[in-house]
Amino acid sequence: MPYIVHIGDCCPNGMLLWIYLMFGEISAKAAHMLSLPKVLDFFTRLIQRVSPKSYQQAFGEVYVTQKFLENFCGDQVRFLARSFAVPGNHLGQQSHGFRWPYGPVAIITPFNFPLEIPVLQLMGALYMGNKPVLKVDSKVSIVMEQMLRLLHTCGLPLEDVDFINSDGKTMNKLLLEGNPRMTLFTGSSRVAEKLAVDLKGRVKLEDAGFDWKILGPDVHQEDYVAWVCDQDAYACSGQKCSAQSLLFMHENWSKTSLLSKLKDLAERRKLADLTIGPVLTVTTDSMLEHVNKLLEIPGSKLLFGGSPLENHSIPPIYGAIKPTAVYVPLEEIMKDKNFELVTKEIFGPFQVITDYQNSQLAVVLDALERMHNHLTAAVVSNDPLFLQEVIGKSVNGTTYAGLRARTTGAPQNHWFGPAGDARGAGIGTPEAIKLVWSCHREIIYDFGPVPKNWEVPPST
Amino acid sequence: MPYIVHIGDCCPNGMLLWIYLMFGEISAKAAHMLSLPKVLDFFTRLIQRVSPKSYQQAFGEVYVTQKFLENFCGDQVRFLARSFAVPGNHLGQQSHGFRWPYGPVAIITPFNFPLEIPVLQLMGALYMGNKPVLKVDSKVSIVMEQMLRLLHTCGLPLEDVDFINSDGKTMNKLLLEGNPRMTLFTGSSRVAEKLAVDLKGRVKLEDAGFDWKILGPDVHQEDYVAWVCDQDAYACSGQKCSAQSLLFMHENWSKTSLLSKLKDLAERRKLADLTIGPVLTVTTDSMLEHVNKLLEIPGSKLLFGGSPLENHSIPPIYGAIKPTAVYVPLEEIMKDKNFELVTKEIFGPFQVITDYQNSQLAVVLDALERMHNHLTAAVVSNDPLFLQEVIGKSVNGTTYAGLRARTTGAPQNHWFGPAGDARGAGIGTPEAIKLVWSCHREIIYDFGPVPKNWEVPPST
Amino acid sequence: MPYIVHIGDCCPNGMLLWIYLMFGEISAKAAHMLSLPKVLDFFTRLIQRVSPKSYQQAFGEVYVTQKFLENFCGDQVRFLARSFAVPGNHLGQQSHGFRWPYGPVAIITPFNFPLEIPVLQLMGALYMGNKPVLKVDSKVSIVMEQMLRLLHTCGLPLEDVDFINSDGKTMNKLLLEGNPRMTLFTGSSRVAEKLAVDLKGRVKLEDAGFDWKILGPDVHQEDYVAWVCDQDAYACSGQKCSAQSLLFMHENWSKTSLLSKLKDLAERRKLADLTIGPVLTVTTDSMLEHVNKLLEIPGSKLLFGGSPLENHSIPPIYGAIKPTAVYVPLEEIMKDKNFELVTKEIFGPFQVITDYQNSQLAVVLDALERMHNHLTAAVVSNDPLFLQEVIGKSVNGTTYAGLRARTTGAPQNHWFGPAGDARGAGIGTPEAIKLVWSCHREIIYDFGPVPKNWEVPPST
Amino acid sequence: MPYIVHIGDCCPNGMLLWIYLMFGEISAKAAHMLSLPKVLDFFTRLIQRVSPKSYQQAFGEVYVTQKFLENFCGDQVRFLARSFAVPGNHLGQQSHGFRWPYGPVAIITPFNFPLEIPVLQLMGALYMGNKPVLKVDSKVSIVMEQMLRLLHTCGLPLEDVDFINSDGKTMNKLLLEGNPRMTLFTGSSRVAEKLAVDLKGRVKLEDAGFDWKILGPDVHQEDYVAWVCDQDAYACSGQKCSAQSLLFMHENWSKTSLLSKLKDLAERRKLADLTIGPVLTVTTDSMLEHVNKLLEIPGSKLLFGGSPLENHSIPPIYGAIKPTAVYVPLEEIMKDKNFELVTKEIFGPFQVITDYQNSQLAVVLDALERMHNHLTAAVVSNDPLFLQEVIGKSVNGTTYAGLRARTTGAPQNHWFGPAGDARGAGIGTPEAIKLVWSCHREIIYDFGPVPKNWEVPPST
Repeated sequence: MPYIVHIGDCCPNGMLLWIYLMFGEISAKAAHMLSLPKVLDFFTRLIQRVSPKSYQQAFGEVYVTQKFLENFCGDQVRFLARSFAVPGNHLGQQSHGFRWPYGPVAIITPFNFPLEIPVLQLMGALYMGNKPVLKVDSKVSIVMEQMLRLLHTCGLPLEDVDFINSDGKTMNKLLLEGNPRMTLFTGSSRVAEKLAVDLKGRVKLEDAGFDWKILGPDVHQEDYVAWVCDQDAYACSGQKCSAQSLLFMHENWSKTSLLSKLKDLAERRKLADLTIGPVLTVTTDSMLEHVNKLLEIPGSKLLFGGSPLENHSIPPIYGAIKPTAVYVPLEEIMKDKNFELVTKEIFGPFQVITDYQNSQLAVVLDALERMHNHLTAAVVSNDPLFLQEVIGKSVNGTTYAGLRARTTGAPQNHWFGPAGDARGAGIGTPEAIKLVWSCHREIIYDFGPVPKNWEVPPST
Repeated sequence: MPYIVHIGDCCPNGMLLWIYLMFGEISAKAAHMLSLPKVLDFFTRLIQRVSPKSYQQAFGEVYVTQKFLENFCGDQVRFLARSFAVPGNHLGQQSHGFRWPYGPVAIITPFNFPLEIPVLQLMGALYMGNKPVLKVDSKVSIVMEQMLRLLHTCGLPLEDVDFINSDGKTMNKLLLEGNPRMTLFTGSSRVAEKLAVDLKGRVKLEDAGFDWKILGPDVHQEDYVAWVCDQDAYACSGQKCSAQSLLFMHENWSKTSLLSKLKDLAERRKLADLTIGPVLTVTTDSMLEHVNKLLEIPGSKLLFGGSPLENHSIPPIYGAIKPTAVYVPLEEIMKDKNFELVTKEIFGPFQVITDYQNSQLAVVLDALERMHNHLTAAVVSNDPLFLQEVIGKSVNGTTYAGLRARTTGAPQNHWFGPAGDARGAGIGTPEAIKLVWSCHREIIYDFGPVPKNWEVPPST
Repeated sequence: MPYIVHIGDCCPNGMLLWIYLMFGEISAKAAHMLSLPKVLDFFTRLIQRVSPKSYQQAFGEVYVTQKFLENFCGDQVRFLARSFAVPGNHLGQQSHGFRWPYGPVAIITPFNFPLEIPVLQLMGALYMGNKPVLKVDSKVSIVMEQMLRLLHTCGLPLEDVDFINSDGKTMNKLLLEGNPRMTLFTGSSRVAEKLAVDLKGRVKLEDAGFDWKILGPDVHQEDYVAWVCDQDAYACSGQKCSAQSLLFMHENWSKTSLLSKLKDLAERRKLADLTIGPVLTVTTDSMLEHVNKLLEIPGSKLLFGGSPLENHSIPPIYGAIKPTAVYVPLEEIMKDKNFELVTKEIFGPFQVITDYQNSQLAVVLDALERMHNHLTAAVVSNDPLFLQEVIGKSVNGTTYAGLRARTTGAPQNHWFGPAGDARGAGIGTPEAIKLVWSCHREIIYDFGPVPKNWEVPPST
Repeated sequence: MPYIVHIGDCCPNGMLLWIYLMFGEISAKAAHMLSLPKVLDFFTRLIQRVSPKSYQQAFGEVYVTQKFLENFCGDQVRFLARSFAVPGNHLGQQSHGFRWPYGPVAIITPFNFPLEIPVLQLMGALYMGNKPVLKVDSKVSIVMEQMLRLLHTCGLPLEDVDFINSDGKTMNKLLLEGNPRMTLFTGSSRVAEKLAVDLKGRVKLEDAGFDWKILGPDVHQEDYVAWVCDQDAYACSGQKCSAQSLLFMHENWSKTSLLSKLKDLAERRKLADLTIGPVLTVTTDSMLEHVNKLLEIPGSKLLFGGSPLENHSIPPIYGAIKPTAVYVPLEEIMKDKNFELVTKEIFGPFQVITDYQNSQLAVVLDALERMHNHLTAAVVSNDPLFLQEVIGKSVNGTTYAGLRARTTGAPQNHWFGPAGDARGAGIGTPEAIKLVWSCHREIIYDFGPVPKNWEVPPST
């Protein structure tokens, strides 16, 4: 295996420090380069070449990456290595808690964010002193290949990162043989579960999300809320792990024109500017079949969409449907025979919508509890008592609350990741970097002196 | 499964707070009760009934448990739930990072610390708001059974902890069916690895330790260092995961009378006061066989011990040997054919001793790197440059450094646990409790207002 | 001066540690003793003997003190001394940030909380390693004298605290001669300002409060809000620095029966149980004169009270009036000629009440900005947008927000103190203790090695 | 007064956030500009025009300023505003601790670091949300004037900083009338003490330093230690508040050639490259008079220097002497009649040197305790027991310890400032910024609900 880490000459006094200082400089240079309009535009368009999303969505990915790099200029990488110390039990003793690198680690990232996810995780791994091997989904790895060249230009030593292009099978073999101390995987639940077993739990995972949004009893700003719903469900053609998959509307919202606004917004999306586009991992047939199964549930109905995109040259191995929403009654969702079906994640422009009465909030909360994945969520309400009720009884990792709540949007300034899973990873913030890319090490200095009158005590 | 958590009426405003306040009170009461001489003595003797160790060693276990409980009186449990917040991207937005409970969790603890390990982990789980099921090794579970009654007296609700007595097989079945969100396991590497696979990585582990100590070039306080070595290797008959298994002596120490002092100290241990005693998981034959295999290595020799205890009634399913040390030359240890043998953990009163020349430090560091487990370690030296060299190139989780360094001793005031393993657990400190028993949850409040002149923007 | 600190044998390794461990034990013992009903009752009644308040109010003071002591049992005192470290600029360099004791310090506390304020500040000073001299207002110092005896019983060394009984003039002389490195003063603004000059700014102050409460536009729970207002304004006969002095009612509240409820609640207070009682620092005449001056303002009126207590034997050097409220129109309050008068703190059972229209919120905020002291405040509303408007434009140190907001209540679990003043002190929490009773000290370890090829560079 | 702050639309949700985000961007741009060789050189030479120091010393000042700005790019300004929260006492209550701006503040900085000190303090004030007025010593204010123009170019709004050029008297008047909530003063002790009284303690001070260095018993790396001593005492002609003023040599060092090495190093300094140069605040006569007074002490002697610089055109209002050292015996230093004289700070190229025997360490420690100011210090030793003895018994704010210890060098990566003074300021690090430029504000959200069966309780 290539990725033996050379923790080398590091030490807790000045621990790993040239790494820390070097990466502060690399980050400053790379942040500056990514802020140049020419470079920003280059990466935006490069992302669009391989990952079907609008210019603005691709731009957002580069922008977040640039801001992330700005966050770790100067001394901020060494500040990540901040340790703490507490007085010990006798003179000359003091215990120190460090965040220590794992050493050799692996990173596997998906197709939908070809720049942001690999850069943020890779740099996090490096900042904390690890030696990473990186695999990005082959369909989109050209973006990261270009970014690595930029990083090399900014001072990243060639030998610090191993970048591999392979299929999943080969990568799996590599991991089993190389036995990295930690593997960060972002991608599908199926692969995540397999890796967790193969690597005996030495993993951190950011996998699927079947993300819900609840509209609370207080109705305001219909246009704004409708627009956020449309973006959450259909931007990037729904190919975000944070995309809105299930919308619970309070009955007060059902009485508004929200649904018709959602329909209007969905229907203005078009292939021309990639505000709707190809779905890379689910075919048109699979998606429509799912829609049809849902429509067999009593009381369910198609709200909009539900048909293939037209006039396009998207190859049939990809999916291509119009932004789609299916209404399913809450009581039907809760039935054992329907629950798995309704809460199946479709990684495309699709959502389920339902509504609930004031008296049914407990049923809604029960539905949240029964779901398997707990990535993002949104509670749209400015009522503090409603918010504390829903938030207190749910466990999603990244939960927006308030009138402007959304499920998508994973900026660099706050934690993004699942909760409720011992293997859950986070991305981007100082807290995420420290938790994912380092482990606690306690060093207890115990210099003495031995008390002057010390004598050998009896054995115990 | 019994252990469905009722996160109930909790909420981020006043999140889980009656739990936090209640456990502050329970801890204060239990700490006071354990500080009463009668109760302290009761638990010390009860531990001795089931776990072969001296009065002082058992006493130490109760003492640490009492101090731990003192640490979480009053508001200190709610202070564990301290969150942080950062201004967001527009007026009315603020992101909050919480440590959130997993919900239903499991705890499995071993025979050698029947009180300290289960109490510290159980209370940690409860403090952070989880619903634990607890299994203690059946041979010793009476200690925890009594402790739970004490906790109930101090106010612990009966339904807050499920306590199970079973064999490992039944427990394994229970875990597979109940699917707790996290399982904390303390015990053998073999079981740990199996659980990691069975539970798909939803585990935190504190398993075996093959713990080393290095004596550096600066020789002082021979008596003191010899005494610490004796305690590290042979207290509790070596049945601590932190016990000293391999001692590297700098050549300057070889020239002293350290070895003869070690021999004298080992030989004053006696069955009468349990300063040496039965070994619960390795038979006499297995241990002596291991000694003999080591003695076949060229240059190796028996330093002391190496024979069965005499005049005892310890059943043959247990082990009973005198405190034993075998010298093996460093060059031989490093040979591929010997390394696994020499670094095999013997959970009994046994250690390997070797020495190294000034020029061989790199070889010693290489040996450390090749070991699998990284629990405790000690670097006995007051030379800052030597310390930073050894510490910087090793990864053990709990590392003592300085003249008074030891490998054993896991007080409540500093972190204890392995490093370098993504699944590694810690025990006892606020940091350990938070990392093991909670996960990050980010709640982003986004109340608005929506800007007055806001209009629906184009789709992206 | 007696209070020369002996920082003695302390050191950053094991810095001051026997102090830290000893105070963890003293706190555990004292917390346990104060939790005994007999002791709790003793101190409650002792407080009542010297400070005119109801049993429940005095009880609350003892209870908070007991909880505070529970918070610093076991290792929690040494955890206060937690330092941090960051990698340096070259191998062997690491910078450490400590919270370091000042050394000799002084504490001066007032009559109204004869137990809570001196205990919390004194223990804070000791926890951080200082050598304090303590002066409590002579009228009430018997409470602390008894408490010191209890602390001595729990292990506090006699020489650790100097306790002085004197008038203010003598104390002032002592401070000028002894020159403590820091003096904590809790009491009147007048004395605070003088001390700040006399001691050249080496002070932390918690002085007067002219504390306001705003009732927002959303009306709910009238009975509850009225009861909180009554307690905030009149408990302890208004002799809390956090007492409600000025109430701003939104016009929506003016339409309710709030004012009549306030009147009813005020009128059920009686001397018999000390729910109203003597005022120690303002005479009856002074208070009534103030009322009359306010009533001269156009539009103002007496809402209730405004007359002396009857049938009592309170000596005339103290004050004794019924709970009193005067209404003054907002526009009049804002006039330059009235503002100082209306916002003059009366340390007795007196408040001003006004109301505001929706369009006048800016005027209310302007009034807050013009006040001198910024201790406590309350914003009674569950509307997030209203809350952020008021909180964002005010600076009071301890601000309650939400339906249940109050101005009084200074528990041990959150910070209490003014904001907006460089000399402002806090009390009780770990943050308050660290900020008030320690200073930052940076120790940069720089062990080397000096690089092998190092040569003397040119001078710069 | 011009500097009324407009806390404006800020709020704890999104508190002051556009300020935080704007300053992240300004810092990124300014850091980039200062990293351009042309700009770096411009400011280096500009500093040299007004403040007599070598190119390398002036360069270092710009470099530290640039690194400081890098540290606060992106989200790092808003991360400074990080708050914390703790669960409250009942459902719906949660207490939040914020770092809140003071509002209108003032900054006064000296001549010797015309760029670094004002930029670091000014930006710190702005980062935390304050409205500062800045006065830099008039002799050197052109540097900051140019820097402000650069900051304006990078986006700093013109109205955010008031920049004043005046003499001290006018500034004093301005402060008294404007009454800023906090004034940061860096400069002489005399002015500092006056300001503390004038502003009634609303100050933070970083004043004089009479800084000591102790060479411990373990002698190594003579050349290195001599070079550091020379730089500490004479770089910038000794005009640093951190300059080495008193050197204590252990007798083991006296036996080496250290003193002759110091002499050689001092004598290679020359006016041509400003490695020695004009002294702005002490005349030649004053300095030589001080030397002569010291030489009257029995046993004292001139080690080197002690005469005026030659062949120069430095105006006589400034000082100009050769790097000078005077030896004074330790016993003489300790005498009451000599102590004040020996420990008088001379802000020029001058130091006192003494030595001590092993048995005299307590005398040395006593000398440290008797000094008034506690800014920087150095303990040159790699012996952990010696270090903990000296550090544990001293209180200097920025203390270097280890073989490579120095007294000067105030980089942006660690705290720099005095300790042991309640008014002491720090500079540059996140901790310094937060402590100096913000105060604690506690906001307790208490939304309810009020319990359903709540009834008005009796008054208390």
